[in-house]
Amino acid sequence: MTMRPVSISGVASTPFGAHTDVPIHELAVRAARAAIEEAGIDRGEIGSLYMGNFIGGMLTGQEVLAGLTADALGLANIPCTKVEGACASGGIAFRHACLAVASGECEVALAVGVEKMTHASTADMTAALNAAMDQCADAPSGLTWPGLFGMGFRLHAARYGTTREQVSSVVIKNKGNGLSNPLAQMGAELDAETISNSKPIADPLRLFDCCPPSDGAAAVLVVARERAGSGDAMPVDVRASVQTRGAARLAGHADLTSFDATVSAARRAYEQAGIAPSDLDFVELHDCFSIAEILDSEDLGLMPRGHGGGWALEGRTRVGGDLPINASGGLLAKGHPVGATGLSQIYEAVTQLRGEHPNQVKNAALGLTHNLGGTGVACSVSILARPDA
Amino acid sequence: MTMRPVSISGVASTPFGAHTDVPIHELAVRAARAAIEEAGIDRGEIGSLYMGNFIGGMLTGQEVLAGLTADALGLANIPCTKVEGACASGGIAFRHACLAVASGECEVALAVGVEKMTHASTADMTAALNAAMDQCADAPSGLTWPGLFGMGFRLHAARYGTTREQVSSVVIKNKGNGLSNPLAQMGAELDAETISNSKPIADPLRLFDCCPPSDGAAAVLVVARERAGSGDAMPVDVRASVQTRGAARLAGHADLTSFDATVSAARRAYEQAGIAPSDLDFVELHDCFSIAEILDSEDLGLMPRGHGGGWALEGRTRVGGDLPINASGGLLAKGHPVGATGLSQIYEAVTQLRGEHPNQVKNAALGLTHNLGGTGVACSVSILARPDA
Repeated sequence: MTMRPVSISGVASTPFGAHTDVPIHELAVRAARAAIEEAGIDRGEIGSLYMGNFIGGMLTGQEVLAGLTADALGLANIPCTKVEGACASGGIAFRHACLAVASGECEVALAVGVEKMTHASTADMTAALNAAMDQCADAPSGLTWPGLFGMGFRLHAARYGTTREQVSSVVIKNKGNGLSNPLAQMGAELDAETISNSKPIADPLRLFDCCPPSDGAAAVLVVARERAGSGDAMPVDVRASVQTRGAARLAGHADLTSFDATVSAARRAYEQAGIAPSDLDFVELHDCFSIAEILDSEDLGLMPRGHGGGWALEGRTRVGGDLPINASGGLLAKGHPVGATGLSQIYEAVTQLRGEHPNQVKNAALGLTHNLGGTGVACSVSILARPDA
Repeated sequence: MTMRPVSISGVASTPFGAHTDVPIHELAVRAARAAIEEAGIDRGEIGSLYMGNFIGGMLTGQEVLAGLTADALGLANIPCTKVEGACASGGIAFRHACLAVASGECEVALAVGVEKMTHASTADMTAALNAAMDQCADAPSGLTWPGLFGMGFRLHAARYGTTREQVSSVVIKNKGNGLSNPLAQMGAELDAETISNSKPIADPLRLFDCCPPSDGAAAVLVVARERAGSGDAMPVDVRASVQTRGAARLAGHADLTSFDATVSAARRAYEQAGIAPSDLDFVELHDCFSIAEILDSEDLGLMPRGHGGGWALEGRTRVGGDLPINASGGLLAKGHPVGATGLSQIYEAVTQLRGEHPNQVKNAALGLTHNLGGTGVACSVSILARPDA
């Protein structure tokens, strides 16, 4: 049984930041409405809705976000499903919209992702984000996410000689990219000294090494390829969309400098798309922390193991470099409204492939997005392409 | 594009009730392990896992239940996805496992559902369950779920003359069925007077009109039909599995005695299976409250509108009657660990079709399950059959 090819015909992202007075489902509706309008598709044609959301229940007391959003949009009596895989929830929603169309279950599917976090206290936020950890095995140790990635930083430094300066160059690049992205929450012009001197969060990680909590939503409309192009915007091919799992507990990881879920998702995605990492023109990856960009880019096979820090410091991952990473500003600068992030990455990649990105990569024809959840417990990797590529 | 037929080759349910010292993911693992063993399938063959869960985050602080469960089971690096649609989460997980196999994405898919509730205070539980309401439109009114179904009771009584005695006959039947189901949390021999005199919850609903909060899990293994029958247990055909949405806000309902999502799901399921309601041998439906069984059974077209109460009082929905409903005891007696309920219904239906149910329906060949969420915001209806039917 073969699946049919699918395309993206509309994308949208709200600005990321504080949307204090906007109810969570209304944020989702704003992104969805804009994506539908761009696609030039009648709402009655949408046959399935997937909602990426992680901690809507814990932080806003609101579940059933898939149905609520469909209701507000006036969609038909279609299946509406919230999917959750921690910080990979948005990428999982995208994959399911692709599957719904690829399998012929429907002609048009809508993926939306949303989160609302900035109103919460640090204690509530930490507790909610920790729901992605095993509550029996890991949470009681007092581990937090900065703690986990702080350990990854130390190990990577010990093994490969990765330096503070290299890691800071990731922050400088992404925060700088964010400055020219109008949807980004926290773009900034930073220097290495400011980063090193910022507040310690989980040594060696400092404040500027960590992505901010955010409110925001993003949406993507997926259609059968034969009907792509009904709207004014250029459609984009989905060449691969893969979802994997990895160890759910720290003790299940052989190595804290690599995530199995990313390695296996990337391998399958390259195979599905019939490409090699060297064919990529740009990557949007899950830089929840500065060091994560280095770990992820090595897991994705973008450079040899241990070279991620060097590539960053040498400017090879800047726009204009060998392989631009997170031209959007990434999670570090655009922000990380958890359930929305995976779809925000798709939005940024589609904008690149259309040649309309504020930090445009020249001749961008083939891009990869990477969304990672929890202790690498869930991962989604997609490969998107210009139709002529 | 056509989907291929799928079958169920293994099912399991934990007892429902209090599992105070068992972590939530461990409950899921127990059900999953038993379903896999029954199917006689190698774990390495499972290609996708769907987890039905509603309020794991809010009541236990544990999300990523799909990945955690897969990890504990030692599954491969497969996609593992939690799906949420309030009380219909389990049914939605089942449908997605069916889709994964039907579309050819994988050969074997596992659907698991779990919830853990009995440890929570009434206040915490009420707040968590209210996450299925629109937090802007309905929750501020002070509405609760017994309140909603209490209104449905009043309206149904005013319109069709439905009586307390008729509604109590649903409770007597389901609590009685639960007495002989070893997995049921709250079977009981009740009379109409005891029910009428029990504590008022949301007038006219009394304590015994309401399902209990529960801890529990259920699991179902779905396989391509051509490879069903590898285990010792009789495989069961999935003839239809449909998911719909309905109004997410009270004001969106034309009528509180009927749920659009059920009506449309049932219509599509009958069409998919090529049957009429009169062909069914039994039904497991979403009796979160006694009156819900009457509303649901009319929405499913099992009897003419307004006749649900009469059918119950006349014994037509008992085992041995025209169309046995909730021979398992239903949510009222088996219990309602929210995310598990839809899969528990599949478990009970499969057991009936195998002729192995503690309350066996004679010659059961064709059954329907119905799982409803929130204000009818999400619904799942499945039709299962003996292979020879």
